[in-house]
Amino acid sequence: MPTLNHWVLTIVCPDRPGIVHAVSGAVVEASGNITESQQFSSADTGRFFMRLQVESAADRETFRTALEPIAERYTMEWRLDVVGRPLKTLVLASTAAHCLNDLLFRQRAGQLAVDIPLVLANHGSLRDLAQFYGVPFESAPVTNAEQKAAFERRIIEAVEEHDIELVVLARYMQILSPKLCERLAGRAINIHHSFLPGFKGANPYRQAHARGVKLIGATAHFVTSDLDEGPIIEQNVVRVDHSRSASELVAIGQDEESRTLTQAVKWFSEDRVLLDGARTIIFR
Amino acid sequence: MPTLNHWVLTIVCPDRPGIVHAVSGAVVEASGNITESQQFSSADTGRFFMRLQVESAADRETFRTALEPIAERYTMEWRLDVVGRPLKTLVLASTAAHCLNDLLFRQRAGQLAVDIPLVLANHGSLRDLAQFYGVPFESAPVTNAEQKAAFERRIIEAVEEHDIELVVLARYMQILSPKLCERLAGRAINIHHSFLPGFKGANPYRQAHARGVKLIGATAHFVTSDLDEGPIIEQNVVRVDHSRSASELVAIGQDEESRTLTQAVKWFSEDRVLLDGARTIIFR
Amino acid sequence: MPTLNHWVLTIVCPDRPGIVHAVSGAVVEASGNITESQQFSSADTGRFFMRLQVESAADRETFRTALEPIAERYTMEWRLDVVGRPLKTLVLASTAAHCLNDLLFRQRAGQLAVDIPLVLANHGSLRDLAQFYGVPFESAPVTNAEQKAAFERRIIEAVEEHDIELVVLARYMQILSPKLCERLAGRAINIHHSFLPGFKGANPYRQAHARGVKLIGATAHFVTSDLDEGPIIEQNVVRVDHSRSASELVAIGQDEESRTLTQAVKWFSEDRVLLDGARTIIFR
Amino acid sequence: MPTLNHWVLTIVCPDRPGIVHAVSGAVVEASGNITESQQFSSADTGRFFMRLQVESAADRETFRTALEPIAERYTMEWRLDVVGRPLKTLVLASTAAHCLNDLLFRQRAGQLAVDIPLVLANHGSLRDLAQFYGVPFESAPVTNAEQKAAFERRIIEAVEEHDIELVVLARYMQILSPKLCERLAGRAINIHHSFLPGFKGANPYRQAHARGVKLIGATAHFVTSDLDEGPIIEQNVVRVDHSRSASELVAIGQDEESRTLTQAVKWFSEDRVLLDGARTIIFR
Repeated sequence: MPTLNHWVLTIVCPDRPGIVHAVSGAVVEASGNITESQQFSSADTGRFFMRLQVESAADRETFRTALEPIAERYTMEWRLDVVGRPLKTLVLASTAAHCLNDLLFRQRAGQLAVDIPLVLANHGSLRDLAQFYGVPFESAPVTNAEQKAAFERRIIEAVEEHDIELVVLARYMQILSPKLCERLAGRAINIHHSFLPGFKGANPYRQAHARGVKLIGATAHFVTSDLDEGPIIEQNVVRVDHSRSASELVAIGQDEESRTLTQAVKWFSEDRVLLDGARTIIFR
Repeated sequence: MPTLNHWVLTIVCPDRPGIVHAVSGAVVEASGNITESQQFSSADTGRFFMRLQVESAADRETFRTALEPIAERYTMEWRLDVVGRPLKTLVLASTAAHCLNDLLFRQRAGQLAVDIPLVLANHGSLRDLAQFYGVPFESAPVTNAEQKAAFERRIIEAVEEHDIELVVLARYMQILSPKLCERLAGRAINIHHSFLPGFKGANPYRQAHARGVKLIGATAHFVTSDLDEGPIIEQNVVRVDHSRSASELVAIGQDEESRTLTQAVKWFSEDRVLLDGARTIIFR
Repeated sequence: MPTLNHWVLTIVCPDRPGIVHAVSGAVVEASGNITESQQFSSADTGRFFMRLQVESAADRETFRTALEPIAERYTMEWRLDVVGRPLKTLVLASTAAHCLNDLLFRQRAGQLAVDIPLVLANHGSLRDLAQFYGVPFESAPVTNAEQKAAFERRIIEAVEEHDIELVVLARYMQILSPKLCERLAGRAINIHHSFLPGFKGANPYRQAHARGVKLIGATAHFVTSDLDEGPIIEQNVVRVDHSRSASELVAIGQDEESRTLTQAVKWFSEDRVLLDGARTIIFR
Repeated sequence: MPTLNHWVLTIVCPDRPGIVHAVSGAVVEASGNITESQQFSSADTGRFFMRLQVESAADRETFRTALEPIAERYTMEWRLDVVGRPLKTLVLASTAAHCLNDLLFRQRAGQLAVDIPLVLANHGSLRDLAQFYGVPFESAPVTNAEQKAAFERRIIEAVEEHDIELVVLARYMQILSPKLCERLAGRAINIHHSFLPGFKGANPYRQAHARGVKLIGATAHFVTSDLDEGPIIEQNVVRVDHSRSASELVAIGQDEESRTLTQAVKWFSEDRVLLDGARTIIFR
């Protein structure tokens, strides 16, 4: 008996009747059994989104043969991947350890299907942490325009060298150039340390303290050149009260930052995040 | 152009490949467009569960014709209903107003698709509330076995008279007889004022206080003769601290009770609750 | 044996050593037993805040005699009230029922110590609801400047006539004039249907949908002339996903609005809300 | 000008009027300024609990002199410590890394004032993790009664050798003997991987799956010989749905376990956890 593969299939196309029947027909053709299925028709953009998990002994070529005529008929973009394949992920970091620690701990614990060939940082202080988890680490200062350009060239180089599929800004704290943002569009995730759209920009915890908010939060979003305006992937909040100073808010918020970023990376690595204009579809 | 109907179709059958393709084929045959779709394969019972929402100008007979051969082939139970059709609902109450108030308020506000032809209570104190919402109200004391039997006969009578599809125990506080539980199996929902399986039985808030728990909760579940052991539909909790007396816990918990019960009723009315042995599948 | 009264004492003064000892000395002098105590020293403003609950057979005059010398020595503002005394509350409403319903239901249920002598609305549609709870209701259209001025005069008149201590804008949907805001400063609470400071202004749910946020919320705050910028009293959020339309967000958000507003009113009625510049101290 | 110390003072005594005045008088005598204060009168046991933070240039002896007469008069137990002094903490572990990782990461990040001179484990697999954080690690198998007795002797020895003030069972998975439980009473904290009192004993996630609960949780509690019945310190829950297998529940629950345990340890290390019979007072 042939081994069963577990495939994840995502499709996006203009919405119209018959898509599910057509796609499930292709799955039947590839001797597949649908084990998970989620779909969404966007009233905003008229597009149809679908994510399937399929058990099948068939190989990629068989699926391709079955899917291509349908893809053409429905003007469909599709993507087929193996469930659980580790995503090639580049992590950018600075001095704050909590997000990097959470990503590496969960990766090792088998809870996060990413393969991290490199951590790039603008400080050397997280080197030990990366090394403990056996992940190569490079740092270079980014304190002027020249260094910044060099650092971004190194990012691009690393992306190509390692076939990077996802870039994670794990509290990297540097603004990427518009050109790099564009190049990484749809495959770079940032964690912003506030509940967007409140408190954009610098020092959000100080802003939150001054405003006296009763909940603080974190937002994982795609990086775009429009700072802190990229499509939101995940958000979390935690209750605080008047007795917390701005610096205590920082410590309290770090838990939300790391779990929000890790959650976003996890969903992305599982092909659960699709883009619908400025919004994300999350097939949890 | 014919009017589009919005249908909800739920199916349950033994899991095997090809079901989605077959069902979506029937939808195509009935000129339908799938607007929502959820499915689940139970590893525990080997059963497959699906809920679809479908836009179609076709009538019920057309769907039946398309579905019946498939239902036979896959040993499928199916149920087709109109999205938003108010569910005929009988509410049982006692003296506590919060659950009844929430159900009636949301029903009137258009947030809960139920039609409540009658409230039956073992006390008269909620009569005014029911009347304000224009809902017939009957009460009769239930203080001995004879009265209890009479009350249960009235329940059965009301269920038949009004074609009741759901019985809601909105803090009714009386235990239904095993016979009545059986008769209403799968269509009676109770709210238990604790986070099951902790604190079964009477006075759960007193138990919670004595035990010093840090969260209290509520559980909406199907009524079975095995008290407080019916399949769980929804649960919520709220944080409490040491300073709360048992009677304060009661007041705090009431919010969780009413929102948990209303949520369970809402999901049930939308055909989102399916039974898989002792567990529920909730297609949220 | 004389009856014990339950007093709530709040004090605000510049922070310096010895305050607690001085105040607790005055309580001893008035034969009181402190049953609840909370305090906060604001690093932002250098002010000290305290809230005590005290059991004592003494009358108000005895407390005054004991407190006045201390108040002078510490430049202290203080306020003594009877625990549970219903606060004279004027409610402003429009067409949305959920906030008014929650306030009235909880008031009747004994969970909210307010006395509502009047509901003023710019529409007549909530008259029945108010009447069911036995609360006088007046409505007048507010569609031009003249009507608005008349409505505000009626508000001021009602505040004086009924010795109103709190004005609650229960989704009133009209902007109060700067002059009225100033007059009601520190005793008017509004519910904003978003998680401030995100989505200020009109149609916040539409904004939230467009931005694709993953949590929506509500904010209860003091009314100031700086719209949606008044000191925040309470906030809550609820998780939503991509499948929710803007109008569904409205329905989902209403629960957060009503429970957030009711919570803020409850805390205010219990003297748990103190102002520290643009922030609130909440002694929960 | 002398350096200000930050002291934390906790007191427990029978409740009666005048305690706050007396204690705050002693603080004045020691030239202290109260910066934080919390109190609770237990209706269940008639005891009074208080926690103060005090700024003062005075030394311990001065406080002792000021407090002792009061302590005698009110039959008061009191404890004075320096805010932020790291608590001598022994961690017991097994194979699961998540709780130990969270404790060590936060300790290093300066968020948890503990000093961990030793990790004792019944497996060697977490040695690398401990070493990365520079914490001594010992392991010995515990597979029979003799080994268990030897391991417990090593625990007692380590407690004495390092003046251990707190023993943390970070998913240690072994039941301590009644004798050891008694010896460590009030200073050993365990994390139970369910929302107690539901699902006591082994395999709680399997039980939770079978019962189909909609929220799973974790409970940090003091260790007593009555397994899973010790006073609860903290609890958290997370929402799950029907699609989660028992093993997925395990992974999902781990986050709640580690943050619940770390929170309990943090509160304990800050003298915020007091015992009132079978319940805990948590001065958050």
